[in-house]
Amino acid sequence: MNTKGKFITFEGGEGSGKTTILSRLIAYFDRLSLPYILTREPGGITISEKIRNVILDTRHTEMDARTEALLYAAARRQHLVEKVRPALDAGTIVLCDRFVDSSLAYQGHARGLGMDEVWSINQFAIETLMPDVTFYLDIKPEVGLSRIAASQEREVNRLDMENIDFHHKVREGYHIIAAKNPERVIIINADQSPSQVENDIVCEMEKGILKGFGVSLSNKSK
Amino acid sequence: MNTKGKFITFEGGEGSGKTTILSRLIAYFDRLSLPYILTREPGGITISEKIRNVILDTRHTEMDARTEALLYAAARRQHLVEKVRPALDAGTIVLCDRFVDSSLAYQGHARGLGMDEVWSINQFAIETLMPDVTFYLDIKPEVGLSRIAASQEREVNRLDMENIDFHHKVREGYHIIAAKNPERVIIINADQSPSQVENDIVCEMEKGILKGFGVSLSNKSK
Repeated sequence: MNTKGKFITFEGGEGSGKTTILSRLIAYFDRLSLPYILTREPGGITISEKIRNVILDTRHTEMDARTEALLYAAARRQHLVEKVRPALDAGTIVLCDRFVDSSLAYQGHARGLGMDEVWSINQFAIETLMPDVTFYLDIKPEVGLSRIAASQEREVNRLDMENIDFHHKVREGYHIIAAKNPERVIIINADQSPSQVENDIVCEMEKGILKGFGVSLSNKSK
Repeated sequence: MNTKGKFITFEGGEGSGKTTILSRLIAYFDRLSLPYILTREPGGITISEKIRNVILDTRHTEMDARTEALLYAAARRQHLVEKVRPALDAGTIVLCDRFVDSSLAYQGHARGLGMDEVWSINQFAIETLMPDVTFYLDIKPEVGLSRIAASQEREVNRLDMENIDFHHKVREGYHIIAAKNPERVIIINADQSPSQVENDIVCEMEKGILKGFGVSLSNKSK
């Protein structure tokens, strides 16, 4: 399906360290001069940005869970059409911070809408475009949330305000997804130093997804 | 399902006269002192209003058809949760200007997404809540659009700018829906005077939906 480029997604609970790891990974991609883009929904797409503003507005505490799931699917669709698909068609590696698995874990499992039902609206949104590989940064919610509280790197938003049980369910949801999709989802232990997490991901990439780009284990980052 | 109140929706292409007819119908409901609300998506619901603004913004000419369909479903969901369902639970008659059939006719059929696919995301949005009866105001697109151009009652929006073929497909879509749902959808000839259209609808209501509210044919409006 993604015959020219490669679509790599990164998933994880709050404070799993996706942002830190992605900044290290793009340094690795730069060193090897690989063609890539780093993006995340809404990804600078005007329509998707506006949708995201509606979702994350902390005044919208009365938002229904199904409304939220439909809005995520809508923002996903537009981001995919305007940014992801054109990049893949051009032979680029697309590194995407969160994708459909986030909706399945957060809305489908943790909010109790059902993974199958949330999958149905996302299938409408993405049609047949699934990631070639997904790295799930696995960490205990208590550890992840304490990282956020300590770092003060970003503001705490509405999702952060959910209680700890919610975050445990999110993690459980991700593990269900990984078990169902072993050929696509790779679980990475995120309770390690950033360099260790980076090494684990790079190692997996060099064994598989990057082979077509002339990358071998000899290029491995230190 | 809607055991206490009754859910009545009104559908039709551009310029079919829904607004005019609804203002006449609420005068009829007022005369009989029936408990009702008149609404339409987004219906004053903050979240749904914001979603609608994204959809109707004429600068968004690049919006993908699936994104649009998901946004309509999201606005529908929130309007249903905050306004329609509470009114029905309170025993009120809900008169709603457009509902799920609009998405099936416009996005599903006219834009070619497929009625079944658009139905799947709308089923996620509405769960089991369907109208008790739907009045489809049927009119040739040429007649409807000429009415809008002549009246200058409202601004021409992005949907109006679609070409005439699109509006013909919308009408075809509504006829397919009506054929599939004869127990729910009543086709009304909207190429008549407003009083004739009103009479046709009131006649149908008094034969069926309003019986539980103590309305008989003797109350029929002139």
